[in-house]
Amino acid sequence: MTTAEPHPAPDFDELVHQPNRLGILVVLAEAGRADFSYLKGLVGLTDGNLGRHLAVLEEAGLIELRKGIEGKRPRTWATITRRGRQHLDAELAAMRTLVHRFEK
Amino acid sequence: MTTAEPHPAPDFDELVHQPNRLGILVVLAEAGRADFSYLKGLVGLTDGNLGRHLAVLEEAGLIELRKGIEGKRPRTWATITRRGRQHLDAELAAMRTLVHRFEK
Repeated sequence: MTTAEPHPAPDFDELVHQPNRLGILVVLAEAGRADFSYLKGLVGLTDGNLGRHLAVLEEAGLIELRKGIEGKRPRTWATITRRGRQHLDAELAAMRTLVHRFEK
Repeated sequence: MTTAEPHPAPDFDELVHQPNRLGILVVLAEAGRADFSYLKGLVGLTDGNLGRHLAVLEEAGLIELRKGIEGKRPRTWATITRRGRQHLDAELAAMRTLVHRFEK
């Protein structure tokens, strides 16, 4: 065990790898967009925690948030950006590599 | 977007999902055991950070650490436990599920 070998999990980016953020990106990639309440029910987070994860993703340019009014209620809609899809694809590719490594 | 759907990333356990800990478990699952210096070179962490990740994994019963002397140098050897393999298998299964979801 003295030879150097590449790190087997080098391509996981904490930004996307974190399970709740990953879940949010998966949903947005599949659904196109989702509102705050829907995401909250899905990932089971408090408003504060979900808000923080969404802010992290927005600051990194992986999602866009738009506020609007529907009926009398304010709603926040999230959509995934092109950059967000690229990061999600990279995460899935890294997972695929690791899974295949163990299937061999 | 009002129907409830399961969280797409529910089975990721932060304990194992964290990239450096995941890398350590992958190496130990493949190599049987590895020493501190080898792991340090592999994951590119400081002594303190690697030590903390190893302590977290040991406290959770996923790895075992044994200290010994080789030549004149003290060495710490890490091995993966049966429980560690189970957690790693669960992580890989969750990754496989997510990857397949996007291959469909």
